[in-house]
Amino acid sequence: MKATVKITLKHGVLDPQGKAIEKSLGQLGFTGVNDVRQGKLIELDIDADTPEEAEKQITEMCEKLLANTVIENYDIQLNPAD
Amino acid sequence: MKATVKITLKHGVLDPQGKAIEKSLGQLGFTGVNDVRQGKLIELDIDADTPEEAEKQITEMCEKLLANTVIENYDIQLNPAD
Repeated sequence: MKATVKITLKHGVLDPQGKAIEKSLGQLGFTGVNDVRQGKLIELDIDADTPEEAEKQITEMCEKLLANTVIENYDIQLNPAD
Repeated sequence: MKATVKITLKHGVLDPQGKAIEKSLGQLGFTGVNDVRQGKLIELDIDADTPEEAEKQITEMCEKLLANTVIENYDIQLNPAD
């Protein structure tokens, strides 16, 4: 089963990468850029008999490795059809 | 206007970060992980009068800075309501 995990910084957490991108966009002449936040996108292909089992496994993966839950949120989207 | 840009490696491009995550998941005892691909998620808040104008600007941002179009694909999702 395939799934996509979106990992983003929690609201209020400083995002130096986002700030660097914002600055570079300004230097390239893009005006009107109010905010830029960078996160991670992890695409997984795992063995799971049911979506519930996949969700459980991936949640555990996020908690243990993929996300730093102190400063990051994660959002799991299953693609059972794939 | 808010938008989310998903930047992922093109099919066939080696993903060392994905492989490292895959290996770590195995070491943590997660079996049945067939593939892991890591990409970037960029959330933008820009000034634009219309969705078309926002799409045009962000496409240009992707082409010039956000994505390495030789090895990466980008997908723009506008969130006009936000």
